[in-house]
Amino acid sequence: MSRIGVFGGMGPSATVDFLDKLVKLTPAMRDQDHLPVIVASLPHTHDRSSAILGHGRDPLPQLLAGIEMLNQAAVGVIAIPCNSSHHWFDEMSSSSKVPLLHIAKACVEAISPAGATRVAIFATRGALVSGFYQRELRLRGIDFMLLDPEGGQKNVDSCIREIKAGNLDAGGQHLTEACREAARQGATTLIMGCTEIPIASRYADVSGLSLIDSSLELARASVAFALARGWNRPGWDS
Amino acid sequence: MSRIGVFGGMGPSATVDFLDKLVKLTPAMRDQDHLPVIVASLPHTHDRSSAILGHGRDPLPQLLAGIEMLNQAAVGVIAIPCNSSHHWFDEMSSSSKVPLLHIAKACVEAISPAGATRVAIFATRGALVSGFYQRELRLRGIDFMLLDPEGGQKNVDSCIREIKAGNLDAGGQHLTEACREAARQGATTLIMGCTEIPIASRYADVSGLSLIDSSLELARASVAFALARGWNRPGWDS
Repeated sequence: MSRIGVFGGMGPSATVDFLDKLVKLTPAMRDQDHLPVIVASLPHTHDRSSAILGHGRDPLPQLLAGIEMLNQAAVGVIAIPCNSSHHWFDEMSSSSKVPLLHIAKACVEAISPAGATRVAIFATRGALVSGFYQRELRLRGIDFMLLDPEGGQKNVDSCIREIKAGNLDAGGQHLTEACREAARQGATTLIMGCTEIPIASRYADVSGLSLIDSSLELARASVAFALARGWNRPGWDS
Repeated sequence: MSRIGVFGGMGPSATVDFLDKLVKLTPAMRDQDHLPVIVASLPHTHDRSSAILGHGRDPLPQLLAGIEMLNQAAVGVIAIPCNSSHHWFDEMSSSSKVPLLHIAKACVEAISPAGATRVAIFATRGALVSGFYQRELRLRGIDFMLLDPEGGQKNVDSCIREIKAGNLDAGGQHLTEACREAARQGATTLIMGCTEIPIASRYADVSGLSLIDSSLELARASVAFALARGWNRPGWDS
């Protein structure tokens, strides 16, 4: 049970980015200092955002199958580097023998309420309708804003779509536009609440906003969970 | 059985690099066009090179456990982005219900014998003692060379060690030195026969050598195997 389980493929590039963060966050001088990780990258999972919005197939059976597969692989915790899938967090948690880390909780805990006077949430339309980021921010009394669905949000949608298609520069350009709009509306902090957005941010002008990377915060929570339990020390297989 | 199995963690950064290549090599416009992948990243596996050289613990039981885990996860093929572990390729293959792709075969098949007048092999000392690259090159009648164990090979050793420790610039500097030495000795082509070396090559001056990236060639072979079988089309979980 001394392995991090990663339910990925939603999307595949975001999963690679998340795994890269896990490796870089782990203090290690050699292979054997690192954390064991089992990844189920299952990109055929139906589009989460569309399903939440009521015009796509229900991914829940696939999500539960992925959680079951990771449980069978004897992981000790599960991280899911896909924000929208957290709409079904309670169902997935209930079906799992091992705990799941919540990406939005990890993300919002990283915000300093003193510094974040106004937080913009960039996420899929499905995640925004689901509302788990808004709930976490309200619980901590942090002011937040969303882009206009008929305006700036279209740039967020395009950003995510372009990154999923491998078009990094185009993704970055759309993110730049969305950031400018959020800043014009008084945002000081940006939650990159879709795991494709941090990839786009490397190709965007995000100056003037304090960035919170949901993928990085989930990776930090995962590594902290594992290091606290000594999973970087060889055990089961030594 | 429509998933690529990746036995990784040897080392962890090389596994991330390999997964990144799988994603980029797959023609896809959206998540659902991608290939399902199960990754067992098990970095506690004993050092492969040391074991081959006779002064480290035998990793074979751990290697067989990793292969068994991937078989249980119903993968249809297994790729191992670690060259040195291919010393035990036959034992791992025999224990697996599904085929394993051989990194050195994939790599040597990518070399044009006409263009490669002299091929330098950069790998761990263990992989060089094991001799699977030399065997594949001899089978195709391609001339090759190794660096002096008391000279240039020390730079290859240091390059691999620095990348495993996350020191990218230092890894690149050692690779630059090793490449200069190989070029002085008449090498025209370089097999980067350790999956840490392609990472170092982004931080090195490798001009004058035609590069063959063992990780990229294994990724190409994996994606070709999967696409030929239609694993990018949703099936089991749709």
